[in-house]
Amino acid sequence: MPPAAPRSGEAIFSSVDRVNAELFTLTYGAIVRQLLNDLEEVEEVNKQLDQMGYNIGIRLIDEFLAKSNVSRCVDFKETAEMIAKVGFKMFLGVTASVTKWDADGSCCSIVLEENPLVDFVELPDTCQGLYYCNILSGVIRGALEMVAMKTEVTWIRDMLRGDDAYELQVKLLSQLPEEYPYKDDE
Amino acid sequence: MPPAAPRSGEAIFSSVDRVNAELFTLTYGAIVRQLLNDLEEVEEVNKQLDQMGYNIGIRLIDEFLAKSNVSRCVDFKETAEMIAKVGFKMFLGVTASVTKWDADGSCCSIVLEENPLVDFVELPDTCQGLYYCNILSGVIRGALEMVAMKTEVTWIRDMLRGDDAYELQVKLLSQLPEEYPYKDDE
Repeated sequence: MPPAAPRSGEAIFSSVDRVNAELFTLTYGAIVRQLLNDLEEVEEVNKQLDQMGYNIGIRLIDEFLAKSNVSRCVDFKETAEMIAKVGFKMFLGVTASVTKWDADGSCCSIVLEENPLVDFVELPDTCQGLYYCNILSGVIRGALEMVAMKTEVTWIRDMLRGDDAYELQVKLLSQLPEEYPYKDDE
Repeated sequence: MPPAAPRSGEAIFSSVDRVNAELFTLTYGAIVRQLLNDLEEVEEVNKQLDQMGYNIGIRLIDEFLAKSNVSRCVDFKETAEMIAKVGFKMFLGVTASVTKWDADGSCCSIVLEENPLVDFVELPDTCQGLYYCNILSGVIRGALEMVAMKTEVTWIRDMLRGDDAYELQVKLLSQLPEEYPYKDDE
């Protein structure tokens, strides 16, 4: 039997268990508030959110591979497209686009058209250095590391900081040549 | 025009924005892990989760009232049924049932048939006093306080502690006789 074709993010999203987006948004807000209370330094909060995201990403990649029928991407370009078109859709229900490729195809931007994490959010003046959605950069970094791609993920634009979009730069630092370390052992 | 009839939890759930339940579960897990690291005392973690839930509940009640067309419940019994049948469905996509009413109708149990918060969760021995889902009791307490009902919400059964179900006892402590303080001012 030939392998099943990759499924669209839309199709996956409509078939998986879901919860109310507002509940998720408020729950995420509770995390950020808690970290701001506990850690005080905004820079530390950014780091912690990224680390939480990383821990989530290394788990979420299993769900992504299991549900999407994506077995492997030929290169980083295809991988970035998968994250934007399938990943964001299947997890957050939103679409994203990939732009600003550099010449050698190892760095691009993922631009979010919608961002459910930030509904009802306004940052007080004391939090101006905060990357509120930093969990997302961690998730991407963690998930890619599980498929042998070391990346650096940084915010280029952030609407909570007055920019006109949410833009994440994803830069491939190194890529192991072998097969995915991921095995379906569950 | 007569007021619109209350909508079922199912109908609301299928019409609101949603996110992937696994992402929510892992995000919630990240909160609990963070609190366990930061606070050390399991009792403090329980308290903090409850407080986070309370803060979410006082916001979520707006979404509940706006989307459900429920204007007011005649008594605590009807309120408890609304939480179980409409509230849990519209936010978590699961159903719950109400049992164990006391003689004067001021105390009951809400039993969860499914609980998306606990997928993949196993508590290590060091966390045996933890009420992992304590955010839920806080949400109920916070939401009810916004509709003038002071309650005490406690876990009676918890499958992570070896019980056969998730059961929350909801006890009405006091109820203001007047109209809901809630006004649709947004």
